[in-house]
Order: sequence, then structure tokens, then C-alpha cells
Amino acid sequence: MRMVDLIEKKRDGHELTKEEIHFIVDGYTKGDIPDYQMSALTMAIYFQGMADQERAELTMAMVHSGDTIDLSEIEGIKVDKHSTGGVGDTTTLVLGPLVAAVGVPVAKMSGRGLGHTGGTIDKLEAVPGFHVEIENKQFIELVNKNKIAVIGQSGNLTPADKSLYGLRDVTATVNSIPLIASSIMSKKIAAGADAIVLDVKTGAGAFMKDLDESKKLAKAMVDIGNLVGRRTMAVISDMSQPLGYAIGNALEVKEAIDTLSGKGPKDLEELCLVLGSYMVLLAEKAASLEEARSMLEEVIKNGQALQTLKVFLEAQGGDGSVVDHPETLPQAKYQFELEAKDDGYVSEIIADSVGTAAMLLGAGRATKDSVIDLAVGLVLNKKIGDKVNKGESLVTIHSNQEDIEDVRNKLYNSISISTNEVEEPKLIYATVE
Amino acid sequence: MRMVDLIEKKRDGHELTKEEIHFIVDGYTKGDIPDYQMSALTMAIYFQGMADQERAELTMAMVHSGDTIDLSEIEGIKVDKHSTGGVGDTTTLVLGPLVAAVGVPVAKMSGRGLGHTGGTIDKLEAVPGFHVEIENKQFIELVNKNKIAVIGQSGNLTPADKSLYGLRDVTATVNSIPLIASSIMSKKIAAGADAIVLDVKTGAGAFMKDLDESKKLAKAMVDIGNLVGRRTMAVISDMSQPLGYAIGNALEVKEAIDTLSGKGPKDLEELCLVLGSYMVLLAEKAASLEEARSMLEEVIKNGQALQTLKVFLEAQGGDGSVVDHPETLPQAKYQFELEAKDDGYVSEIIADSVGTAAMLLGAGRATKDSVIDLAVGLVLNKKIGDKVNKGESLVTIHSNQEDIEDVRNKLYNSISISTNEVEEPKLIYATVE
Repeated sequence: MRMVDLIEKKRDGHELTKEEIHFIVDGYTKGDIPDYQMSALTMAIYFQGMADQERAELTMAMVHSGDTIDLSEIEGIKVDKHSTGGVGDTTTLVLGPLVAAVGVPVAKMSGRGLGHTGGTIDKLEAVPGFHVEIENKQFIELVNKNKIAVIGQSGNLTPADKSLYGLRDVTATVNSIPLIASSIMSKKIAAGADAIVLDVKTGAGAFMKDLDESKKLAKAMVDIGNLVGRRTMAVISDMSQPLGYAIGNALEVKEAIDTLSGKGPKDLEELCLVLGSYMVLLAEKAASLEEARSMLEEVIKNGQALQTLKVFLEAQGGDGSVVDHPETLPQAKYQFELEAKDDGYVSEIIADSVGTAAMLLGAGRATKDSVIDLAVGLVLNKKIGDKVNKGESLVTIHSNQEDIEDVRNKLYNSISISTNEVEEPKLIYATVE
Repeated sequence: MRMVDLIEKKRDGHELTKEEIHFIVDGYTKGDIPDYQMSALTMAIYFQGMADQERAELTMAMVHSGDTIDLSEIEGIKVDKHSTGGVGDTTTLVLGPLVAAVGVPVAKMSGRGLGHTGGTIDKLEAVPGFHVEIENKQFIELVNKNKIAVIGQSGNLTPADKSLYGLRDVTATVNSIPLIASSIMSKKIAAGADAIVLDVKTGAGAFMKDLDESKKLAKAMVDIGNLVGRRTMAVISDMSQPLGYAIGNALEVKEAIDTLSGKGPKDLEELCLVLGSYMVLLAEKAASLEEARSMLEEVIKNGQALQTLKVFLEAQGGDGSVVDHPETLPQAKYQFELEAKDDGYVSEIIADSVGTAAMLLGAGRATKDSVIDLAVGLVLNKKIGDKVNKGESLVTIHSNQEDIEDVRNKLYNSISISTNEVEEPKLIYATVE
């Protein structure tokens, strides 16, 4: 088999076989196939796409390019959730304890990563004492006992995907649905998921800005999951503005606590109930979505969800009292209000720019070596559709620096106020099963 | 400027500017732009094409990536001819002396290369004593004096094209008209051509098998030439079967001598007259194609064409007497006839396979290190449309080995005989000016 022939085959719109795809991924992982052939192939895929079966084979070839996590000692169906990213997305912090409280095992492997705010581990480290340096054995015991634990990423998972993503990033081939879908799915499967719930964001603040493209991506991932024997469902949710109110690490932990107590932002709560219901259903802890949702609403109401968070934090060295006293989480030195300059209705909140403003405060990493300030961030006081009077606060800025002129400017440029009434955006556009 | 943004621009179907194209070619030549980005770009070009102006800029950027040959000391308009390749193509050997005989300066830089037979220099070396190891100064003096000289390739011409071609070859991006056209044109322009006549082959034995594609390629090259100030014309000629009769080095020299004497194969003569007329016209030695053709016919008839060949060979150390005694050219030990197995009409001669048969005899190089046998090769005795009786010779095989079973088999598989009458294929399909 010669790589040049396979590039030509794909270039001409033909379907690659299982053997061919494994030849490519194995050869690339070993370094036998050079980057310059791989990038020509990915560009050909960009134009010609991949059939369902090819996507599934590519996913599994990437899964088998490195280590895979064995979660078989954990009782029950391990359901993982993945979000395609956005701004102020606190769903992971809420969903873990929420579904664990109804008996769904949550064995979360998480990372730090770059972005507007830290990754899940960074956020959780805002809880004094909490850490993820636990042994695999302890991790599994904790999940079996408490139904939830979080461990740092270890092992050499999907090295083919890592190399390929790096290559796509510098060759303008990131934006290809089969390549995005197989990349995401391979990581989830290598991390041991039996079933997967996907939260595909759409709108100005999302990677996929167009609803049709978001639907295609969701369908691509659901199809891969089902073809490779991992039940997968997807929800397409709004990211035309940040989700919830908080953007920042400790601020999002507080928001998660609020939401698990039934006092969180309505959009965040609703999305968590929808995603959570799918997780409960896929874990076979409920017979229908309606039943699943009632169970989740019940554990919020009766305090079990919050209690599960507390037990989880304490099991990994964290101070569980933050659950009752969130004011003990790291606090920024200053709180500034961003006052509305006009009367009207909020018509736009550019999620990306708001995220960048949070990063300017120190909430996220611009490079691998950046140090995150867990206390800082933003809390939106108004969202799209809200009426606002001149002088009212649009955003509370939590900062450890006094001079925040650049942050203020960024925020004013991100938020538009219209004199006409504005409709609240839809939260959930579609579900794909 | 970032290469990834330029790849994306082309991927999305936009036109690259002059500055962008020079940034790419210069960066690639210097090694600042890696192969993996270049191959992604060429695949994007494969799918999105290039506009006329982009092709012209790419051509000139490749010209300026290395040395260029200065032929300004040669009097007159230097017209170069390029053929896109085929089997048994003796046009270069004929055309040089033919147009030189009417005063068109032929300053030919040539190579050896791989293929079914040798390159022009290999063929000429079949003439005892002939060599191309001459100084630039002498080369120019010879062209001014005799109107024709041939020199070996020297200098670092179009290194960007060399690297890019090598990369395209292993990434399935050879077959892209803008890339083929700019590659060919950049080499001709760097070699000092003021004007260019192109012989684009079409049919089963050509690189471009489809007439429409051949027309597109011809038009692409003519447009580039005209945009960069080199008058260019193209002829699309048949390569559904080998051109002329001879395939081999000394055999083709003999065939060229025959043709310059007016006794060559009709198809080869006709194509040389057509291409030659364009060369004479572009060199401004005639006012019309008709006038140009009459001049060429005249020098064949009056012996000046043949005399020019003789003077040219002798000026570079060759034995000019071969012109009158072609039997003194290297001769193979054996001559075998390939006898027709049936009565009928020749309906197909697969040029590629016939060329491969010649290579099996030793007429061409399979690798850079192969040694060519100048004496061996094939002479077709029948061409498409010819009537043939069982037992008549289809091909005379000139061989230095006795066992030629594989060559016989290859040839029998290459030549089809039909019971129905077959029309002679058209020789010239179109001209593009």
C-alpha cells in the first residue's frame, strides 16, 4: 500500500477501506508517513468528506494509536459528556454531581488546557485543598463509592489525534466535520466512555457559528458513536451569548453550587437538566427522558445533588464547607461595575470578546506557561433580551488589578444595547439521537 | 503574512495576490515554509484552481527562485519549443536544424532524464564524437554562427519548481492544470526563451489523455506566456499511438535525418512543419504561417535543413558523415520481426506499452543510474489504420540480446488488429494562440 495512492483515492472522492485507514493512522503515528502526505490527505478530506464508515474507522484507528483507559471495574454504564466549547460553560461542574446523585457513575478524566478560563481541574482547584493527584485504584474506588471522582489526564491517549490536530491547525484543515467528529469521539472512547452525551454549541461564541453546520457535526458524532457501539446522543445549544452569568474559575464554582441548589441561572439549569436527562437515560437509570428529568429535579430540590458535590470535594481533599459558604472561595480584591451608557434592551453579547476580557483579567491561559488567577472573572448582570436603564450594571468585574481600562473597553465593545425590545435567544435548537 | 492564512484563502476559493504568491515561493525555496504546508496548499489548488493572474505570478516567482539564462547576446528572437512528452517523439531532433536553416536561432539547453528513451542529449550522443560539454561563450558563438547549438543543463534553474514537483509527485497533486502549466512555463522562461511554441500531446500515450484537458492545459500555458510578455502558441497533437516509426536513440537520429531529407514518416514531418511554422512566425522570420511553412518545405527540398544538421553536429565534435551514411550510427546486434498473427487493420498501438518495450531493450533509463544502450529500440512498420496480412512484420525489434520474449509479449499486448477497416487518427486536434 502506498500513501500517495490513498491520497489520490480520497482526492477523487472514493471511500477508503478499514485497512487503508489503519495503514494511514498507524504509519503516521510511527512516523513512517510524513506530515506532508498527511496534510495533503486532510485537505483532500476537507473537500471530499468521509462516509459514515470511514469516520468510524478513523475514530477507532486513532483510539488504538495509543493507550486506552479501562473503566471496567466501575459498576454501571459509564456515560461521558463532551461540550464543543464556549464561554462561561459551567455545565461540567454542575452535571457531574447532578447525575452522580441519581446513581450515574461519573469517572471524569480532565485537563487544564488553554482558553478564556481554566479547565475543569483548574476550576475545582479553587476549592481549598482539592486535588486530582490520586492513583487509578483510588479513582475507581471513589467512583464506585461516591459515583463521582475526577483525575488528571495520564497515559498516552490518542497520539495520532494529537499529531493530526497539530498538523491541521497549521494547514487550514481544522474546519472539517469528519475530522472534528472523529477527533472528539476518539478522545472520549479512549478515555473509557461506554456512552456519550454531546453538547454541540452553536452561534457567534461557538466554534461552529452556523446552525446547519452544528447539526451536521452533531449527527456525524452520533453516527460514529452508534457505528462503533457507543450509544451517543447530542444536544445543540445556544452560544450566541455566554451561558449562565459567571466567567472565571472560583466564580463558576460558585455558580455551580447555586445551580445545584436550584438557585442558578435559568439557562444553565435548563441545559444541565436536558444534558443530564440524556446521561441518566444512556446510563439506564431511567426508562424515559421525562423520568430522568424528574429524578434530577428531585435531587436538586431535596439537596442530594449539593450533598454529592460536597462528598466528592471532600473525598479528594477539598474543603466541603464551600458548598454552604461559597464566600470562602478565592475572592478578587476589587469589584467594578460596568454601567450601561444608555437605556434599552441588551441585543448582543459577543461571547468570544467577553471571554477574552476574562482572560485579560487573568482567568485563563494564553500560553501553556501562564498562571491562572482563580479569583478573577466576570459576572453578567444582564443577558440578551433584558431591559436595562442607563447607569445600571451590565457586568460585575472581579479583578485583582485596579487599572482595567482595557477590560472595560473590551466589554463595552462586546455588549450592544438596542432601543427596540429584543427577544431572548432560544437555548436548545435541536437534539440528535 | 502567515502561510496558514494563505492556505485557508485558497481553500476558500479566493485569489492570491502577487505578494502572497512570492511570499509562498520564496519562503518555500528558503525552507521557511515546510513541505506539509506546501502540500496542503497544492491540494487546495488542485480543488480550487488558480486565476490567470495567479498562474502568471506563480510562474514568475518560480523563475526568480533560482538562476536564469541570459541569451541576450544571441541575435534574434529566441523561440523555444516544448513538448509535454510521449513515445517516439523525434520532433526536437528535426525541428532544431529545420528552423535554424531558415534563420531562427536555436539555443537549446537540454537534459538526459528518465523515460522510454534517452533525452535529446542522449540521442545526439549516438553520433560518434558529439558532445555538449561546451562553454557558455562558445555556445552563444555557435548559435550566432550556425543558428543552432545544444548545451547540457547547468545552473540552478527554478529550484522552487524542482522541490514543488517532487512534493506533488508524492502527494497526488501532479495532475493540476495551473501547477503543470506554471511548472513548464517557468522552466522555459528561466532557460531564456523570448517566445515559446508548445506541443501538447493528447490521447492514450500522453500525460493528458483527454482532449478537453489537453486544450485547457494548452490554453493555460498560452495565457501565462502572454501575461508575462513571452509570445506563446500551442498545438494539440495526437499521441494515441507513437509519433513516427522509431523509438530508440540512434534509431530516432536516423529518423530525424530521414525527415530532414523529406523521406521521413508523414505524421512526424507534418507535425514538425506545423510546429516549425509557429516557431518561424514567433521569431519574426516570416509574416504568416503560410509563408513560414513554404520556407521550411523549401529548406527540406534544397538540402539546407540536412546541411544545417551536419554543420551543427560537426561544430560540437560529431561525425557529420552520419547525415549521408546513417548506417554508421550504432547498430544493434540483432533485428527481429514481430509478425502479425492475423489479417486485418491495425486498430490500436498503446504508446505507453510500446515505450516500455523499448525500455526493456535498454533504450531508456528506469533509474538515474541506468546505462542507456543507444543502438537498441523499435521501428514500427505499421501504424493505426494500416492494412496488415498475417505474417507481415508489425515492428522491427533492434536488440543486443537474443532472448526478447518479454518484449515480444509486451508488443503483442500493445498492438490490436481489427477485422474491420480502421480510420487513421487525426494528427492535429487544435491550435491555441
